[in-house]
Amino acid sequence: MNTDIVWHQHATNKASRGAQKNQTPRVLWLTGLSGSGKSTIANLLEQKLVAQGKHTYLLDGDNVRHGLCGDLGFSDKDRVENIRRISEVAKLFVDSGMLVITAFISPFKADRDYCREILDESEFVEIFIDTPLEVCEARDPKGLYKKARSGDIPHFTGIDSEYQAPVNPEITVNFQDEDAVATAERLYALLVEKGLV
Amino acid sequence: MNTDIVWHQHATNKASRGAQKNQTPRVLWLTGLSGSGKSTIANLLEQKLVAQGKHTYLLDGDNVRHGLCGDLGFSDKDRVENIRRISEVAKLFVDSGMLVITAFISPFKADRDYCREILDESEFVEIFIDTPLEVCEARDPKGLYKKARSGDIPHFTGIDSEYQAPVNPEITVNFQDEDAVATAERLYALLVEKGLV
Repeated sequence: MNTDIVWHQHATNKASRGAQKNQTPRVLWLTGLSGSGKSTIANLLEQKLVAQGKHTYLLDGDNVRHGLCGDLGFSDKDRVENIRRISEVAKLFVDSGMLVITAFISPFKADRDYCREILDESEFVEIFIDTPLEVCEARDPKGLYKKARSGDIPHFTGIDSEYQAPVNPEITVNFQDEDAVATAERLYALLVEKGLV
Repeated sequence: MNTDIVWHQHATNKASRGAQKNQTPRVLWLTGLSGSGKSTIANLLEQKLVAQGKHTYLLDGDNVRHGLCGDLGFSDKDRVENIRRISEVAKLFVDSGMLVITAFISPFKADRDYCREILDESEFVEIFIDTPLEVCEARDPKGLYKKARSGDIPHFTGIDSEYQAPVNPEITVNFQDEDAVATAERLYALLVEKGLV
């Protein structure tokens, strides 16, 4: 008996890992201003997906900034490298069969397009959390806008650094009038409607 | 009805993601000389684990060197940074509930210890693929030892760059007399025996 054949009959690759998890792996890339509600929505979306039996992972500042990207600062160059590494890690998670949610401001179109380009077609789902600057600034959950306005934080997105809104995102969700749970439900329904989860 | 409660009752974290996959997430870190058989054994081990219903991912040069670490060369500094990033990504995969296998020479004890230190206790499983240099050099599957001996590849591990063998690895596997499948079976049996998978 050739044991090689027994071992090799189950090829392990992206397709088989996704099938094992009963899902099509993708990146659900949330982009939006500071205070737009990306992290809140991302967390609720993940819970919803897990409750549906999906295998997910959430990449955000909490688990990336001090580890993988702990050597990077906030210069333009470092911000580009930050998003590049996140994109490459997201690609690895897709290869592993997972639905990976990312929650970063990711203000530059070119950086988001980089992630789209390194993935296969339809694996990158750009989700614009479209909360107006005035609303974000009024929320100011971490007091960052106040510091940015007083000049304590330079190059703050939306104040003195550009936010390039997505031109043609797969999904746009306004998070302004409804609460977070209702907004996340709406996002989930859109993903289902478009056959993306 | 407070929908917040409904959404929040299933906390999503490392423990819940591991439980969903019916496994305890860990890093199975293979270390050994070039030509020791790390990648071959790692691939066979992954197939075995998947056949047992485990959720795995394999990090190796093929999926890391040109993407996440594509900006790094082979200087000592870049090699340290290479292993640091791999360690941080491995930690993210553990956090996602996966069994992640890594297959890198990773010649320096300090770099392997870094990964052990950033993980929780018993999450890091150091597996020494203990194939003697003479055997690796006789195999020389990519002709690298020949190039290193002739000076075409400087700082080659085992020739003119040190390989610091693990002092107290969780598992040591000699890959010399048996074929790859038998060796991988032996490794799998050891992992089961020690309650590590």
